[in-house]
Amino acid sequence: MKFCSECAHPVEYAIPKGDNRERAICTSCGTIHYVNPRIVAGTLPVFEGKVLLCKRAIEPRKGYWTLPAGFMENGEGLQQGAERETLEEAGVNVTCGQMLSAITVPFISQVHIFFLTELTSNEHAPSTTESLDVKLFEFDNIPWDEIAFPTVKQTLRHYLDDLKAGNIQTRIWNIDPKDRIERKS
Amino acid sequence: MKFCSECAHPVEYAIPKGDNRERAICTSCGTIHYVNPRIVAGTLPVFEGKVLLCKRAIEPRKGYWTLPAGFMENGEGLQQGAERETLEEAGVNVTCGQMLSAITVPFISQVHIFFLTELTSNEHAPSTTESLDVKLFEFDNIPWDEIAFPTVKQTLRHYLDDLKAGNIQTRIWNIDPKDRIERKS
Repeated sequence: MKFCSECAHPVEYAIPKGDNRERAICTSCGTIHYVNPRIVAGTLPVFEGKVLLCKRAIEPRKGYWTLPAGFMENGEGLQQGAERETLEEAGVNVTCGQMLSAITVPFISQVHIFFLTELTSNEHAPSTTESLDVKLFEFDNIPWDEIAFPTVKQTLRHYLDDLKAGNIQTRIWNIDPKDRIERKS
Repeated sequence: MKFCSECAHPVEYAIPKGDNRERAICTSCGTIHYVNPRIVAGTLPVFEGKVLLCKRAIEPRKGYWTLPAGFMENGEGLQQGAERETLEEAGVNVTCGQMLSAITVPFISQVHIFFLTELTSNEHAPSTTESLDVKLFEFDNIPWDEIAFPTVKQTLRHYLDDLKAGNIQTRIWNIDPKDRIERKS
């Protein structure tokens, strides 16, 4: 941020009075511009021992497999965002069940939240504008080396571990910086 | 948002190509300005059948009681944000336990997330710059009519219900617009 979005005056970076972090401050109109983490909401859709994955049609990580997920929008609920993204990316209407994971990715200031959802049939879109392919994978046949993002891979692994142990948990953790992937865009 | 924060040119509101929502778009440099929900992270600190509440020193809802909570910051983890806010508002160092609630407040585009935390002693700050008073309340003696925010009140009620039932749950819901409170600021 270089200019105030309210009055177009250049901003300066300083710690506002009573605060302890540097913010973009407009020296003309006084607006303090806060920037906060964004939420990525998604689902882990299962059907008869299979999980639905989407092959990304867009960067970052085009061509890699992912769980349907995307940025939560203003005005919608958390589950509503996850369900909307699942419809947009996989072409299926779902209802969120248990929260499986809430994973902070501090180096990009995102929190990725995934919900378990049970599909009622194996019908889904073959592809969408956001996915080159949409496919049900047997749990034993997940393409681990072609998963787009560490938060997706770890959510899948935890779910399968928990399923085996007979106790599906809500897990909350931070991604380790060593799991950072190189982004093309 | 009236001006592009990258180049100071006036923005126009339109639906970008491939999108389905109106965004602020800079017609000069092409930047699309996304605005997404913010996370408020906090804790429900308990000690020997009591819960720690803070009397707000600042608007909105100055003078009302709340659980320690505030906006998650870029670069920090979800629990880390909740723990930082608890230190700032209540003067106690805590470690987050189970997530109790993740409540979307769609009409202000916020998601309020609270974690259970057990205090190891009854020592806490008598007040902070953000709290006029910090106090442990017996569960039977919570000042329900003086609780600052519906997300705090509902998180407390669910926790006490779950405690009675012997099954502390992670609950995820949206605040109903009828629970909207009038804000002074």
